[in-house]
Amino acid sequence: MITKDDLTFLKDALPFWSRLSDAQQRELSEGAIAYQFPSGSTVHGDSEECSGLFLVKSGRVRAFILSDTGKEVTLYRLFERDVCLFSASCVMRDIHFDINAEAEIDTYAILIPTLLYEKTIMESLPASNYINQLLASRMSEVMWLVEQVMFMRFDSRLALFLVEQSAIDDSNSIMLTHEGIAKHLGTAREVVSRMLKHFEGEGYVELFRGGTRIIDMDRLIAIAERKD
Amino acid sequence: MITKDDLTFLKDALPFWSRLSDAQQRELSEGAIAYQFPSGSTVHGDSEECSGLFLVKSGRVRAFILSDTGKEVTLYRLFERDVCLFSASCVMRDIHFDINAEAEIDTYAILIPTLLYEKTIMESLPASNYINQLLASRMSEVMWLVEQVMFMRFDSRLALFLVEQSAIDDSNSIMLTHEGIAKHLGTAREVVSRMLKHFEGEGYVELFRGGTRIIDMDRLIAIAERKD
Repeated sequence: MITKDDLTFLKDALPFWSRLSDAQQRELSEGAIAYQFPSGSTVHGDSEECSGLFLVKSGRVRAFILSDTGKEVTLYRLFERDVCLFSASCVMRDIHFDINAEAEIDTYAILIPTLLYEKTIMESLPASNYINQLLASRMSEVMWLVEQVMFMRFDSRLALFLVEQSAIDDSNSIMLTHEGIAKHLGTAREVVSRMLKHFEGEGYVELFRGGTRIIDMDRLIAIAERKD
Repeated sequence: MITKDDLTFLKDALPFWSRLSDAQQRELSEGAIAYQFPSGSTVHGDSEECSGLFLVKSGRVRAFILSDTGKEVTLYRLFERDVCLFSASCVMRDIHFDINAEAEIDTYAILIPTLLYEKTIMESLPASNYINQLLASRMSEVMWLVEQVMFMRFDSRLALFLVEQSAIDDSNSIMLTHEGIAKHLGTAREVVSRMLKHFEGEGYVELFRGGTRIIDMDRLIAIAERKD
């Protein structure tokens, strides 16, 4: 059971809610569970875990892939009202990849457990159509990453990352080490350090212990948008 | 209208066929259209085109992305009974990428036009669930590519490409220029030539005008499977 406020959020966050039957609505209200994820904790680990569909009520979740050797690449981020789909991936046949998810800041989420989620999409056409849309949207984010990696120069990728991170944090100072940035971009620390030094030399950023301050946002945006 | 043989194929290729109503089955039978795509022709161009869902009856279709500067990366291939989903991408909101598709050999496909396709998934829960599964499966192929690009060394990617291409063509000789291979892998011709020369020096392959012959398949498979 969830609180009244959580239920209001759930109704609002699931666009197909009003098209469910009374029985389906009751099942979801009664079956949903509230979760607290402290900053840095795991929302979803590997494919053996299959908790269900998480709806982020507040906080921020980072979805990423992990190589056998521990290398990470950030795929996308989930903000308020976003749905974490791949924590229910066992419901879908033909998913042959593992997406990990961790809370980047303290996060509060509502879980629709796997069996309940599966029952809902197997019984409700609006729910199934909504999941189609969600899958298409996630696929768009991953395709964007593919295009970025395959078609973009590294200076553009790094500039874009700094611009986006600054927007997310609502600050010109990005509190991430070079190692941390390298993890997000799936590259080596040395590659990031070299390019940041170059950016600093050009006066676009200022490096300080544990972070990077953006000095010339317009210039960084121009680099981010540049094509080969 | 399609031939009786095409209709038999359609019923067989769409796993939800038997769960459609008589009226829905009739609409699909009457609305489906047969298409011939000569080798090298475009099945699906950019996002402005939106023909509908293509089912490959025979032949082979390559799905790829294209950068502003004309660089190509192969995403996946569609074989007999596979469904080309993104030629109907206008039906899905939240698709923000263009996938191109071309016939690699002479291809015969059955089209379910966009409006008919949209009507079917909006009315039939089994059809909608099937599209969910298909999206998950395509997403898996794209995720595999992401992992390959982000986590794999180029020698492994090239070895894997040669092994796969040889399996597809059912021949040890891969009739593709270095330029052609570079296109598939989204890299420069020089990068491919250098690595192929290295493979030749090690006795894994033999280079000839317009192609590459695999000499030591076991070794190439071992390189393809190697992790960083």
